[in-house]
Amino acid sequence: MATGYVYHELYAWHDTGSFVGMLPADPRLGLQPFQHFENAETKRRIHELIVATGLIDRLVRIGPRKATDEEILLAHTEDHLRRMVEQSEQDRGGDAGDGGSPFGKGGVEIARLAAGGVIEAVQAVLDGTVDNAYALVRPPGHHALREHGMGFCMFANLVIAAKAARRSHGVERIAVVDWDVHHGNGTQAAFADDPATLTISVHQDRVFPPDSGHLHERGTGAGAGYALNIPLPPGTGNGGYLEAMRRVIVPALHRFRPDLILVASGYDANAADPLARQMVTSAGYRELTGLLLEAAAELCGGRVAMSHEGGYNPVYVPFCGLAVIEAMAGVEPFPDPFEPNFGGMGQQELQPHQAALLDRAVGLLADIHPA
Amino acid sequence: MATGYVYHELYAWHDTGSFVGMLPADPRLGLQPFQHFENAETKRRIHELIVATGLIDRLVRIGPRKATDEEILLAHTEDHLRRMVEQSEQDRGGDAGDGGSPFGKGGVEIARLAAGGVIEAVQAVLDGTVDNAYALVRPPGHHALREHGMGFCMFANLVIAAKAARRSHGVERIAVVDWDVHHGNGTQAAFADDPATLTISVHQDRVFPPDSGHLHERGTGAGAGYALNIPLPPGTGNGGYLEAMRRVIVPALHRFRPDLILVASGYDANAADPLARQMVTSAGYRELTGLLLEAAAELCGGRVAMSHEGGYNPVYVPFCGLAVIEAMAGVEPFPDPFEPNFGGMGQQELQPHQAALLDRAVGLLADIHPA
Amino acid sequence: MATGYVYHELYAWHDTGSFVGMLPADPRLGLQPFQHFENAETKRRIHELIVATGLIDRLVRIGPRKATDEEILLAHTEDHLRRMVEQSEQDRGGDAGDGGSPFGKGGVEIARLAAGGVIEAVQAVLDGTVDNAYALVRPPGHHALREHGMGFCMFANLVIAAKAARRSHGVERIAVVDWDVHHGNGTQAAFADDPATLTISVHQDRVFPPDSGHLHERGTGAGAGYALNIPLPPGTGNGGYLEAMRRVIVPALHRFRPDLILVASGYDANAADPLARQMVTSAGYRELTGLLLEAAAELCGGRVAMSHEGGYNPVYVPFCGLAVIEAMAGVEPFPDPFEPNFGGMGQQELQPHQAALLDRAVGLLADIHPA
Amino acid sequence: MATGYVYHELYAWHDTGSFVGMLPADPRLGLQPFQHFENAETKRRIHELIVATGLIDRLVRIGPRKATDEEILLAHTEDHLRRMVEQSEQDRGGDAGDGGSPFGKGGVEIARLAAGGVIEAVQAVLDGTVDNAYALVRPPGHHALREHGMGFCMFANLVIAAKAARRSHGVERIAVVDWDVHHGNGTQAAFADDPATLTISVHQDRVFPPDSGHLHERGTGAGAGYALNIPLPPGTGNGGYLEAMRRVIVPALHRFRPDLILVASGYDANAADPLARQMVTSAGYRELTGLLLEAAAELCGGRVAMSHEGGYNPVYVPFCGLAVIEAMAGVEPFPDPFEPNFGGMGQQELQPHQAALLDRAVGLLADIHPA
Ligand SMILES: [Zn+2]
Ligand SMILES: [Zn+2]
Ligand SMILES: [Zn+2]
Ligand SMILES: [Zn+2]
Repeated sequence: MATGYVYHELYAWHDTGSFVGMLPADPRLGLQPFQHFENAETKRRIHELIVATGLIDRLVRIGPRKATDEEILLAHTEDHLRRMVEQSEQDRGGDAGDGGSPFGKGGVEIARLAAGGVIEAVQAVLDGTVDNAYALVRPPGHHALREHGMGFCMFANLVIAAKAARRSHGVERIAVVDWDVHHGNGTQAAFADDPATLTISVHQDRVFPPDSGHLHERGTGAGAGYALNIPLPPGTGNGGYLEAMRRVIVPALHRFRPDLILVASGYDANAADPLARQMVTSAGYRELTGLLLEAAAELCGGRVAMSHEGGYNPVYVPFCGLAVIEAMAGVEPFPDPFEPNFGGMGQQELQPHQAALLDRAVGLLADIHPA
Repeated sequence: MATGYVYHELYAWHDTGSFVGMLPADPRLGLQPFQHFENAETKRRIHELIVATGLIDRLVRIGPRKATDEEILLAHTEDHLRRMVEQSEQDRGGDAGDGGSPFGKGGVEIARLAAGGVIEAVQAVLDGTVDNAYALVRPPGHHALREHGMGFCMFANLVIAAKAARRSHGVERIAVVDWDVHHGNGTQAAFADDPATLTISVHQDRVFPPDSGHLHERGTGAGAGYALNIPLPPGTGNGGYLEAMRRVIVPALHRFRPDLILVASGYDANAADPLARQMVTSAGYRELTGLLLEAAAELCGGRVAMSHEGGYNPVYVPFCGLAVIEAMAGVEPFPDPFEPNFGGMGQQELQPHQAALLDRAVGLLADIHPA
Repeated sequence: MATGYVYHELYAWHDTGSFVGMLPADPRLGLQPFQHFENAETKRRIHELIVATGLIDRLVRIGPRKATDEEILLAHTEDHLRRMVEQSEQDRGGDAGDGGSPFGKGGVEIARLAAGGVIEAVQAVLDGTVDNAYALVRPPGHHALREHGMGFCMFANLVIAAKAARRSHGVERIAVVDWDVHHGNGTQAAFADDPATLTISVHQDRVFPPDSGHLHERGTGAGAGYALNIPLPPGTGNGGYLEAMRRVIVPALHRFRPDLILVASGYDANAADPLARQMVTSAGYRELTGLLLEAAAELCGGRVAMSHEGGYNPVYVPFCGLAVIEAMAGVEPFPDPFEPNFGGMGQQELQPHQAALLDRAVGLLADIHPA
Repeated sequence: MATGYVYHELYAWHDTGSFVGMLPADPRLGLQPFQHFENAETKRRIHELIVATGLIDRLVRIGPRKATDEEILLAHTEDHLRRMVEQSEQDRGGDAGDGGSPFGKGGVEIARLAAGGVIEAVQAVLDGTVDNAYALVRPPGHHALREHGMGFCMFANLVIAAKAARRSHGVERIAVVDWDVHHGNGTQAAFADDPATLTISVHQDRVFPPDSGHLHERGTGAGAGYALNIPLPPGTGNGGYLEAMRRVIVPALHRFRPDLILVASGYDANAADPLARQMVTSAGYRELTGLLLEAAAELCGGRVAMSHEGGYNPVYVPFCGLAVIEAMAGVEPFPDPFEPNFGGMGQQELQPHQAALLDRAVGLLADIHPA
């Protein structure tokens, strides 16, 4: 098994400045300068852990490149691209669109490199040079909309890569599984009316975007039924997530029968993340990956490409990311030293109120009509 | 209304080194050096926010002093104190007892200053120089046991202050309310068999210490019934916490009729904390404080002293701490700029499975016999 | 002896962002985001050291206030003030004028507080409520020009305070001694043609501004002779600095006979500063201060007010600042633990090529005509 | 031309803790916790700049390995190695020998990887797989003595590599040029009585070790004349350094006629370093490298291997390191954006008092007898 891996040191240079979490510092509002939740630390630490554990030697390095204008316009308006390019020339940089998604001078070049990294990962899977691939990119992409970025995202990396895949390899049916803890609203919007793209987002109920990712968001027009949302209650742990995978996501994939599975792989459902309240551990991520790969093996020759999204705890995210990539590469697990801390938290197992939500989600599967 | 306030710049000098969260860095275990969850940032930012908003001008500054050996021995063995003193002489410092509670060279002096700060806050309340008081100290104390520290705590600041209060002012009945998100195991243990001290801990079910803080832990011997634990499920927000205050904590206080209320005020139940999964916002903390002060006004002349415990998100904790102290001082709220982010999270209101836990806790109140 | 002390926590909130030293980050130029040389760390550490050593208890706290428009316009054009106010409303803040002097949203309020802090320090000295005073403010001021800021400075704090002093107390003769390692070009320019204000800058030869601070810059028009520059060679240590004080600065003051002495007290001539190459130690700063106070005692009743300027090594600057303020307060020195490291550097004593430069500076004294 | 390059992410995991520069934090001494001067930042930024500029694609990556006990014992006593291994098992790590050279738990493994990285770089040059090579390792090595480490150094990386080279390839005559700004005392001591190894150290007069690196230190016994020290005065810039290279170092190499040239390449003579007072710019480092390579081309087939030593300004060192490696690889210079800042500092050109020191050093060349 060959697993592709995209990382570039410039991803860590994406500059989110001296924000206070997700707000610009402002003494009048009591906002003392600090750092943005979405900073380089977490992602750089994943990469360094991959090197330190030796996993790097089991992966096939895939070099990213900058996405072209044409590629970015697969997912975005010319206006949005132009704004990003223009703001990227400003000394203090700019913002992707919602005031909480800053980037520095020259930042559009890194955003291009992120999108291009995901494109290349997907291409490598489709070309068969690797069996599956992981793109550890930054900035993330799953919240970015056609007309503007948001939620720390500049370009919709995975949407771009999916559309590029369709164009280059004529891939017909694509499933996108988004296990970032926030709603994958950008990806959902991009494919809302497209029955050939199934978007599944499992997330914490109403965190970000604020009023988004409801069970009743199902896609529109011809795409009705091909958007699936699983808004798990806050406090859900491994038990609830694995049950969601087993009872909803994998069955949905089986009904849909994709030719390619893309994953928006955020780690902010981890048990120590500041930006959500879930309790998934590295062991949970490992098992989620295993179940997904198993489905992919049956359905689409194992063709899975993952794009890195959120995950904001620099201490724990690296071990979650490591677990996913190890699982993709079929490599023996490196022990997670935090397992005693987070694995032992109360109510890691499926709770009745979580199961009740999943029951409702299961009811939506019938709208996915077998290809 | 006069509110006392203890802070000393040396609290920020308590040195927890280059830990990785709560584990010592070790390349062989994949643990890249970083910082300890319990570092200066969060607490220093609370203090600076108190200054920046002008709240400081509405508070009565109380200068801390170093707790004496005699005072520390009110709560600890001579062995523990000696170990702390000895390790404090080592160039690399030492650990309070569990390997995850490091302190630097000279650290015992800061721990003395923390304990002494809480003592002075309580004394000021008892002396009537202030109506209530807040001690923003570091390191924290509520996990520290008689024989050793743990959970980032060196000395049991609040236990020491409570015993000093009893000695100096002959205070008979003391209630300790611990709303840190972790179980206040140290305080509970110190007063387990003492029916004159009611300890109430509201926390997230089984986080830290791992298997501690169960409903069935009720105190021992003569103290049976005078330890109360409310292990809220992960994902509990303002609704659940306020209901716990209204249905369990306040009624317990009314049954117990304390002469003094102490609060172990951790903020790690906040909606963005890495070390727990609750969703309390600054508005929630403000309201919790209001309810508690109301009870104190009725029961013990408003005599409340709070000791700072946990809280690990440098971005959000300052606004939670500010809300509590503003409420104590009866000051108009300074707006929380994160309210749209965290206040709007799904399931902030009381959930049925949370109410079910509270029902069980209510059942325990009967064991508190009116004085 | 009473020494006034100005500090406000908001000074540490002045936001210089994710600059790379003095350049804006830009991946295309190889400039990885980092921090500005002029960040909060050094100044906050001075303040905390003053508290930790107990010096704070020997000082008279003077509360700063925000300088008014009218006060700022004593030193600046309306255009400059308006630009600062406008840019301060931008989400990403602005720049004082040269692209290397960033400030954050709301930053003009902190700049007002810095100027106001220096004003209040000077007023307290003139009112006689203290004998001398130190204003530990941020951002600094000595490079700011009438029409725009530069060199990390927004407003010319000391110029404003000097002019306010003249207006409020009718002070006639003011001497400004600038021992920041860079040329005090802003102060010199503000008083270039004013024979009632003697500006003396001792600095490292041609560092910043690049081609500024030459011996031959002497003031203009009526002010000719009343600007004095001492461009010491790189590598000058305590010996050269003390000789400059003894042979040039103190004699100049004696000729000029000021009513008030202001000091632009930068510490970037320290032995470990990144932004210059001098070798002054805390002992050197202490002795420089002693010599200056001695002259002030003889000349102007000891009326000295200092305004904090540069100093960019967070490790060593605090001990240099401490030494100056201790000397002002007549307090027993707290030992400098770095004395063995920096005090023992080779060629700390006066070198012949340094003496040669001083010889030339001595020659300039004759142009200062006794009042 | 092929240039080898050694870097490993684990070098950045070498843990120097929360030191205050070079002293352990201690509140009683006024030492607020901070970071060690020798931390990961500077070196990681060099590596990332090498990647970001694309230089990485012009280099031949050489994988480091851990030096064996046998290799380390080429330069150290068994006692020293055993101490490092034992202290590396302690939770808080240990110290290489002087109290200012801390390392973390597991740190000996990174020190082995540093020594092994230099060994491999030298071997690659000797094997002819590359023309020259640069080992960007951490911790550094040039201060480490046979019996103990010091000056942030655990093992004498370059001494080990030199002795390994002699053993593996029978290299006879080795010249070590040390342009770290501090005296290369460890290397000098290791080869003091060996006339087959010429050690040349150009450094700032008496900085570290405190009283070391004098002109009169010439080697001992058979090695007399084969240690050369050039203690440049503080404040020396490009002019003085290049003149030292042209008038002393290159002539010494020509007299000695080495078979291999090793370089202890520290960058702490840069114009913004906190730990010395020199003014070398990236252009200066580039030119120094060019002169050295030119000599190497004439003398020993261009066989040069460099080992990374000091350099403590995270902002500027990366551009200095880049310049050296570009010069080794014969690659077009990437522009240094700090050139206007540091290149324009006054007295960059050779000064008379610097020339006078060089005159004295030239007089020592006669003791190097042609092979
Ligand atoms: Zn997310
Ligand atoms: Zn806690
Ligand atoms: Zn300066
Ligand atoms: Zn060095």
